[in-house]
Amino acid sequence: MRKVSIYDTTLRDGAQAEELNLTTEDKIRIAHKLDELGIHYIEAGWPGSNPTDKRFFEDIKKHTFENAKLAAFGSTHFAKKTPENDPNLAALLEAETPVITIFGKSWDLHATIALGVPLERNLELIGNSVRYIKERTDEVFFDAEHFFDGYINNADYALEVLRTAYEAGADKLILCDTNGGTMPHRLSEIIEAVKETLPDAEFGIHTHNDSELAVANAVEAVRMGASQVQGTINGYGERCGNANLCSVIPNLELKMDIETIGRENLKRLLVTSHFVSETANLRPFMRQPYVGASAFAHKGGIHVSAILKDSKTYEHITPESVGNEQRVLLSDQAGKSNILFKAKELGYELGKDDPTVDRLLKELKLKESMGYEYSVADASFELILQQAMGKELNYFSFKNFFVVDAKREEDPEPFTEATVILDVKGQQEHTAATGMGPVNALDRALRKGLERFYPKLKEVRLLDFKVRVLSGAVRDTGGTASFVRVLIETGDKNERWTTMGVSHNIIEASWQAVVDAINYKLFRDDVRASQA
Amino acid sequence: MRKVSIYDTTLRDGAQAEELNLTTEDKIRIAHKLDELGIHYIEAGWPGSNPTDKRFFEDIKKHTFENAKLAAFGSTHFAKKTPENDPNLAALLEAETPVITIFGKSWDLHATIALGVPLERNLELIGNSVRYIKERTDEVFFDAEHFFDGYINNADYALEVLRTAYEAGADKLILCDTNGGTMPHRLSEIIEAVKETLPDAEFGIHTHNDSELAVANAVEAVRMGASQVQGTINGYGERCGNANLCSVIPNLELKMDIETIGRENLKRLLVTSHFVSETANLRPFMRQPYVGASAFAHKGGIHVSAILKDSKTYEHITPESVGNEQRVLLSDQAGKSNILFKAKELGYELGKDDPTVDRLLKELKLKESMGYEYSVADASFELILQQAMGKELNYFSFKNFFVVDAKREEDPEPFTEATVILDVKGQQEHTAATGMGPVNALDRALRKGLERFYPKLKEVRLLDFKVRVLSGAVRDTGGTASFVRVLIETGDKNERWTTMGVSHNIIEASWQAVVDAINYKLFRDDVRASQA
Repeated sequence: MRKVSIYDTTLRDGAQAEELNLTTEDKIRIAHKLDELGIHYIEAGWPGSNPTDKRFFEDIKKHTFENAKLAAFGSTHFAKKTPENDPNLAALLEAETPVITIFGKSWDLHATIALGVPLERNLELIGNSVRYIKERTDEVFFDAEHFFDGYINNADYALEVLRTAYEAGADKLILCDTNGGTMPHRLSEIIEAVKETLPDAEFGIHTHNDSELAVANAVEAVRMGASQVQGTINGYGERCGNANLCSVIPNLELKMDIETIGRENLKRLLVTSHFVSETANLRPFMRQPYVGASAFAHKGGIHVSAILKDSKTYEHITPESVGNEQRVLLSDQAGKSNILFKAKELGYELGKDDPTVDRLLKELKLKESMGYEYSVADASFELILQQAMGKELNYFSFKNFFVVDAKREEDPEPFTEATVILDVKGQQEHTAATGMGPVNALDRALRKGLERFYPKLKEVRLLDFKVRVLSGAVRDTGGTASFVRVLIETGDKNERWTTMGVSHNIIEASWQAVVDAINYKLFRDDVRASQA
Repeated sequence: MRKVSIYDTTLRDGAQAEELNLTTEDKIRIAHKLDELGIHYIEAGWPGSNPTDKRFFEDIKKHTFENAKLAAFGSTHFAKKTPENDPNLAALLEAETPVITIFGKSWDLHATIALGVPLERNLELIGNSVRYIKERTDEVFFDAEHFFDGYINNADYALEVLRTAYEAGADKLILCDTNGGTMPHRLSEIIEAVKETLPDAEFGIHTHNDSELAVANAVEAVRMGASQVQGTINGYGERCGNANLCSVIPNLELKMDIETIGRENLKRLLVTSHFVSETANLRPFMRQPYVGASAFAHKGGIHVSAILKDSKTYEHITPESVGNEQRVLLSDQAGKSNILFKAKELGYELGKDDPTVDRLLKELKLKESMGYEYSVADASFELILQQAMGKELNYFSFKNFFVVDAKREEDPEPFTEATVILDVKGQQEHTAATGMGPVNALDRALRKGLERFYPKLKEVRLLDFKVRVLSGAVRDTGGTASFVRVLIETGDKNERWTTMGVSHNIIEASWQAVVDAINYKLFRDDVRASQA
């Protein structure tokens, strides 16, 4: 089986993404996770460019990796220096990584405009730098920056750049589509020319996603013979990002029978993707191929009934091969089979003729006609399912709430206060709390009344809060009087769950969602306790 | 110049996306926006599948479109019916659209398993349905569902399906990669076989993004001769979504010299993308190619200094060609041109050295750091611009508000009441109102105080209300205590406008947006009066 190595640059090129900021500690944790995934090379930073990266390469020396080789990244030496007295090359060697990647200009425009050196001198910088580093390091890769744009502008020069690096000892020539503007068929033609010019050179591919073609270009280059793919987890990177390894790897493994990290490691793809997004505190992209929450989620009635017969009717791979799973979304067309499937997913085996199913279907139809949308609120669905199964949750019952928002001319924000009366285990709890807004105040007053009885509620964190004005109603009654749906995402140390409320009144809708979130937490803790 | 038509299915296939739920009113507004963009075909729903889509096709008959033809989508007739007595085909014809798209099974597995009919019968369903519809409609497209998977499994049958639809009169055969699992080089080979079998048939392409190759496959099919591309705005769609038209269109126009919507319309790409995501209340994807906020944002030091010399060093196209703009992160140079650009859009010609611009820049920087996002709230931006130009709006001034929400166990919804104190033209107005929620009550109390002075406020309707929790803050403070941004859309008989408020407190954020909405109405009436 043909093998292609994976070169991950999440920690270097990926970190150029807007909103992505990693600490040294984050970078080390991600490096270990990439190693566990079976990545072959980890490009971890540019030691010559900033003190953080330099310090990182000091810290990482204490760590060992099972599969991955670390790579340090840097430019050719400065035009006014020699390799021997160049601080950038010195910093690269001080990083003491088994691999060093040197990038150089292969687009004549860049050499003359961005770098400001004659074309001949640029070739010298490349040759000298690669040679100097190769004499002192195991493996040297040469990143030909803007190779495809360079080739289109001046093919001879771009090829001369590759030849120079190759003759200076570069182990691999990496063809970079730095601006991400190359169409796949042009990329093929250009790679063909490279193969004719340097038939014995090994080459790799580094693409960007500015035309939404980074994955396609990487896959096409491999088909043309590339022995290395560079990219990032989740496609993070400057502007529109880099080739997304979470798509490139399964495409090569599952669609083209090329070995990269291997089929066993592939099952870790989803957890790796989540680990990186969580560490970077970036919201995962639901529609992300292979590893996204929606990647194997089915909503349409026809699709759902077909996948229940044979899942390959609407799934291009088995979700488990990348660590993902099939999901059936409940929508307003929810039929009996959707409910059975959803219940099964949550661990409830219901027969088609179980009276629970009819009760549930009736309740769901009613709620959905009011604007509840259970496809996005699994936890609220599970609470309704419990109810339909005749298991009432009696953690507390509601008596009364009262919320005030008051603002005077001179206040920057309103003063907000909520009071709540609850019955908890036979006792009446009357609590009050202020808040950063009415929902926050209600949430705090509610928890104040409950935490004495259920101390584990202290673990609960509200993670996200979404409000949507519902269909139809808007036009009829004016936006502020129409139905609103509130979705709340809540979490503790074990899991995350989503609950929902619907009302004309945003306070009431939020209250429903908050109450569901708390009930779900208490219910799950009970389930866990009974299983222990 | 070669032309390729664009067939948008945001309202049908796009609406299958998880989290995407559109009202009839949303769908009509999006259809008009697509028409303005110059889209050729708008697939608006499946009238036979559910009452909402059926009602939509009734409502849309009252609307006319400049560029786009509406298409209704539906399946072949039921195996137990004839075309004449099939409810699905009847619903399609009742929609009275100039175009009808019929989908049929081209994968033998689907015909036998999902549909449960013999292969020969499936061909009859396709032939009969296409023929029946073509006799009664201007243009009929045939979507060959799962065509590429079908070809791989049983090439002869898949081609026979196409031939049947072609001979029954289909104007175009749409090759669908329904499961999104096809690699571009396989897609090419299969299209080659189609061209050999049916050299005179026109074909289109419909791809899904499950392998992150939907755009690549669409572009490749066009290169092979496809005369139509189907896709959705922002790539919304079931699972990982459809081919993203916001990438396909500029790739064809700018990279392959193929005319689709034309270069002038292309400049509306970004506003169309934002309009659809805002209408669907989905967070825009920052790294989205061409139209994303990060698509032309430069962070790395080397990149920034290079683009200041020549922007094509790190930009594959000029951002303005798709309505986007260059952003240099951590630099206010980009901010200034941004402001001039936006002011000009609203009809204000400001010089680069106008002191208004500096004042405005300072104010905007401050507000944006708090979470205000003026790109989606033109009316609030125009009010700030007025202020920076020294024109204070003195229609009324705020003194005090007080809102109560109270709910008891026996109430279905809380009781809500608001009181407001205002200064209007030297008089103190103290009003009270109940409402269907705190924002509605405040809105009503505010208008009660103003309508006596400004009777035209009676024309104003609140059309939409959206709330978003701002990113970043969530993890630190818990969802209900983080910053929220409220967007309100308001309209009168002349126009619609969007205003915004930001606060920890949803009541305060809503209040800001409502006050801006009222001020904008009064300001625009004055402008109109002075022009008359």
